Amino acid sequence: MTVAQQVEAANLAMYQAFESADVDAMARVWDDVDPGAVVCVHPGWPMLRGRAHVLRSWSAVMAGTDYIQFFLTDVRISVLGDTAVVTCTENVLTEVSETGQNGQVVATNVLVRRHDGWRVQVHHGSPVLGQLVDE
Amino acid sequence: MTVAQQVEAANLAMYQAFESADVDAMARVWDDVDPGAVVCVHPGWPMLRGRAHVLRSWSAVMAGTDYIQFFLTDVRISVLGDTAVVTCTENVLTEVSETGQNGQVVATNVLVRRHDGWRVQVHHGSPVLGQLVDE
Repeated sequence: MTVAQQVEAANLAMYQAFESADVDAMARVWDDVDPGAVVCVHPGWPMLRGRAHVLRSWSAVMAGTDYIQFFLTDVRISVLGDTAVVTCTENVLTEVSETGQNGQVVATNVLVRRHDGWRVQVHHGSPVLGQLVDE
Repeated sequence: MTVAQQVEAANLAMYQAFESADVDAMARVWDDVDPGAVVCVHPGWPMLRGRAHVLRSWSAVMAGTDYIQFFLTDVRISVLGDTAVVTCTENVLTEVSETGQNGQVVATNVLVRRHDGWRVQVHHGSPVLGQLVDE
């Protein structure tokens, strides 16, 4: 695999862990070398910092999601040394329920190269809203 | 200045360019070495790609904003080689108008080191909503 393919696979693993609601797989996706630098923004959420805090949020989000499927489009990967930035659009399909909704999320993910592969350090997802919001 | 201080200053320059609605200053903030890798997500917007596209969007946003002021909090800077990731909360004060609203935005900004300093390659801002949105 090329470096870009390795990064793409590591990025995809985060979405697959969410789809399968696999807490262990989600824990493997995220960096554990510098746990304090881990950052996650779920769409519409404030910023969560720290590996433990972020993994707890994923457990809660996954526990509250009956069904979800991602189709990633417009995926661009930029690798600079041991850092990679992935930007993409998440086309999200969920069970329509009280909390569920389909729609588009745009994401910026930062991955870092560790001795055993690429790990996610930052995930920032945000909703594409019909109405614009000031910066 | 330390490297972290240089990155912090380059990050702040983007917000200052917006506050002063200075199109030339905004153009200097963004990377022009790899213009195709430039990415910007204004809060609630889809992903905009390419330096020209992104600068046009800033011109439009700044033209439509009478008054805006940022107070950045929870600023964290992570430097890995020639790449820096800045995560922060933007506390936004705008003139209350039809389109204006005050509130919090969380941002992930990726900067790259060029021969003449740090430039913004990715800005991803997202609204902190009262109601949660699925990933």
